[in-house]
Amino acid sequence: MPVSFYKTNADVSTSKKYEKVIKSDRSKLLLNHFRLHDEGVPIVILVSGNHASGYPQVVNLLNEWMDTRFIETHVYQPNSDEEAERPYFWKYWRTYPEAGKISLHVGGWYTEPYINRLDGNLSADKLEQMITSINRFEELLSADGVLLIKIWLELDEETQKANLQEKSNRPYFAWQVTMDDWQNSHNFKERLALANEFMEQTNKKHSPWFKIDAKNAYKRDISALHLITELFDNRLNGSKPKEYEFKKKIKKPAKTNHLAQLDLTASLKRKKYLKKMYTYKEMLYIRAWEMYLRKKSIVLVFEGADAAGKGGAIRRLIRCLDARLYRVIQISAPTKHEISRHYLWRFWMQIPRAGFMTIYDRSWYGRVLVERVEGFASEGEWRRAYEEINQFEKELTDTGIIVLKFWLEISEEEQLKRFGKREKTEYKQYKLTDEDWRNREKRFAYNDAANDMIEYTNTSYAPWHVIPAEDKKYARIEVLNSLNNALKKVLGA
Amino acid sequence: MPVSFYKTNADVSTSKKYEKVIKSDRSKLLLNHFRLHDEGVPIVILVSGNHASGYPQVVNLLNEWMDTRFIETHVYQPNSDEEAERPYFWKYWRTYPEAGKISLHVGGWYTEPYINRLDGNLSADKLEQMITSINRFEELLSADGVLLIKIWLELDEETQKANLQEKSNRPYFAWQVTMDDWQNSHNFKERLALANEFMEQTNKKHSPWFKIDAKNAYKRDISALHLITELFDNRLNGSKPKEYEFKKKIKKPAKTNHLAQLDLTASLKRKKYLKKMYTYKEMLYIRAWEMYLRKKSIVLVFEGADAAGKGGAIRRLIRCLDARLYRVIQISAPTKHEISRHYLWRFWMQIPRAGFMTIYDRSWYGRVLVERVEGFASEGEWRRAYEEINQFEKELTDTGIIVLKFWLEISEEEQLKRFGKREKTEYKQYKLTDEDWRNREKRFAYNDAANDMIEYTNTSYAPWHVIPAEDKKYARIEVLNSLNNALKKVLGA
Repeated sequence: MPVSFYKTNADVSTSKKYEKVIKSDRSKLLLNHFRLHDEGVPIVILVSGNHASGYPQVVNLLNEWMDTRFIETHVYQPNSDEEAERPYFWKYWRTYPEAGKISLHVGGWYTEPYINRLDGNLSADKLEQMITSINRFEELLSADGVLLIKIWLELDEETQKANLQEKSNRPYFAWQVTMDDWQNSHNFKERLALANEFMEQTNKKHSPWFKIDAKNAYKRDISALHLITELFDNRLNGSKPKEYEFKKKIKKPAKTNHLAQLDLTASLKRKKYLKKMYTYKEMLYIRAWEMYLRKKSIVLVFEGADAAGKGGAIRRLIRCLDARLYRVIQISAPTKHEISRHYLWRFWMQIPRAGFMTIYDRSWYGRVLVERVEGFASEGEWRRAYEEINQFEKELTDTGIIVLKFWLEISEEEQLKRFGKREKTEYKQYKLTDEDWRNREKRFAYNDAANDMIEYTNTSYAPWHVIPAEDKKYARIEVLNSLNNALKKVLGA
Repeated sequence: MPVSFYKTNADVSTSKKYEKVIKSDRSKLLLNHFRLHDEGVPIVILVSGNHASGYPQVVNLLNEWMDTRFIETHVYQPNSDEEAERPYFWKYWRTYPEAGKISLHVGGWYTEPYINRLDGNLSADKLEQMITSINRFEELLSADGVLLIKIWLELDEETQKANLQEKSNRPYFAWQVTMDDWQNSHNFKERLALANEFMEQTNKKHSPWFKIDAKNAYKRDISALHLITELFDNRLNGSKPKEYEFKKKIKKPAKTNHLAQLDLTASLKRKKYLKKMYTYKEMLYIRAWEMYLRKKSIVLVFEGADAAGKGGAIRRLIRCLDARLYRVIQISAPTKHEISRHYLWRFWMQIPRAGFMTIYDRSWYGRVLVERVEGFASEGEWRRAYEEINQFEKELTDTGIIVLKFWLEISEEEQLKRFGKREKTEYKQYKLTDEDWRNREKRFAYNDAANDMIEYTNTSYAPWHVIPAEDKKYARIEVLNSLNNALKKVLGA
């Protein structure tokens, strides 16, 4: 979709007129900014442009015009090692705006692929993949209610040369080159063509690009001022992308009853269990260290009905591992801090560095399980979550992270028996809440949700391991066995 | 203070007896753990020991015995660049345990100075400084209610040799060397002597060390189990360090009325203001970039009565800076996420990376201002805060960070006038709350608090700039001037 130019009609032919427009129109922008803050709208503004088009100046002005207390400015910089060791979008998830705040990006997620493509470090295929990822990321932002504003400042070749000439006459500005050295002025046409390719392929209804002519600096600044004021206005007046726009495919209820198919009688004798446990203890310990040495990460997800034995399985698993290599993250209802961002945010933040393992005791699947059943997520929200989750896991596995997902299944009778036991053991009472009893009453709804989840998120790159857990010993060994197989496959031994 | 050994009386002469003790006594530990979780006690456990003493094993066992959902294990690792560019303790502040959780450290903040000292990279003077810093950090933890448990596993030279021999016969364990290679087994005596020096100098009543003999692995494990159970018990039974133990010096109210001394008539003519503004705009822009190039960071603190002009001064300041180099952090009442940790935590987390600037619009001084006046902090808490804050700022400046603190002062009449104006300007209404009016009524109490604050935190390394702000133009230029002078001094030009 071609990108159109935005241009203010204000008269800014002199510096006095320019100042006057700012004085009179800035308050409108600021007021809109405060209103969006009060309404809790998260905002992402991405400012980009060709060399010497003045995008740093525009970013400075936006900070000055609005209230910096609610703005965080993020500049493209080479990755820190904490960033380099994680999937590409991790660093942008880090900057996910809290409800009511603005995340202001200079270049943002476009910069790295743009540079790499120009430098010949990104094949056409990879570029296409990246653009798909960017589109999905922006769709996810928009669907979550983020107001996404993307601006490109465009300069013609002649003015660019003149601006650069002027700059080079003021020697201290040459310092900026340290941050800008990836941006050169040669290959003007090639660069602009690539930028246009990026823009046209990511110019969507819910996240359109706006070009601003940067030839005249006054006009450029005021165009940005008026454009953003207008887009803020639109959102305040209710023009939020409709939720249905993101519900591309309404999935039907799962045809297969994955859970009913399970043979819950699977069990293991104590002697065999102990022997296997002993073997895995040694094998997994070693393999996890080898993963560390090869800088390969692992993400483990444990889901299942209450009392299905997730905690016990995790405890037996970590017995096989060095505590220095893993972290167990227990997921319960999101805190205010977490809920004021996208539901995937808190999970993204726990993605391990290269060589480490994160074990999620419950996970992002809460979106399509408890949040669906209890109505914490709207139908649109949980329905589109299947695809968002698949995409999330794809990004992990594309980066080389192993993703293993376990569903532990028990019968209703067994669950009741275990609840009874918990009531009797003092320290286990801490694990039994009123909520557990309530969830039990909704067992059918949870069953349907689990079946749909397995049907729609059982991908080739991150398949579900559905494990009969009626016999705890059997389930625990199955978990160790699956992990061991996955590691063997990766390590080739 | 010499460190004593802790030893269990349990009979663990065979593996069966060992397993039996675990089976019977683990539930007590776990129950205590849950109870401390419910009471919201933050816990730090630091496990250390000489080479081959088995501290990784003990750390694994602790994870297995307790509930990993409430434990985070942190291992000494070479600094990431995000860590290396900040003060030493930043990475430990990152791991500050939330109320009710355990932060389990392998080696912790002792490891780096220990290695550096052994390698000859830490002079005796620096070592002493570091030990002082460690003691202050641990005092701060304890005073905040953290249960701090420090364990050293001690092995004799002979057993160490034998253990290492055994390990080297199991070749895959050699891999661990990648993480442990800083720990060698030669210089046994020198190493142990240094460890003892560290321990004796940091063995305080509120944060004692416990040695455990690691010769017999069963005895070692069960000693750790029983020791921690006992220390958990003690805390549950009320033996929290008394708050007065940390109130070393009860400071008297300030003798000088710093604020009354100010000449509030100081003002600046518009023409002069604009001229100065123009000069600083160019100078500060350049100097901030030079700070970036030299990787020197800046921390700016703005405090002052409501409507004293903090926001306006900050907006004029950032007009002089490149938005890529600074962040403005607005401080209001702590969120639940923040309040479940030490009050300094949220400020520590915003300390800039090398070359960047953080501007705090209100700050940690809230502890001795609003929290003192409104009673959100107990007397003990705000009284000891002066020293904690001085220490915090010292750590920043010792790392080369410039700390500039501004207090903007206005008269009561001027404040009233400004409140009136705010009510009239639409977008300024967002800045005026009922709280502002209430604070006004407590002006005397706030005045006393501000005076004490200036008296007790006006250090040579981070002095206060108390600025008459009755005339906004004068105050704004004073801020720019102070920053400019500070940068000139650092940059030598």
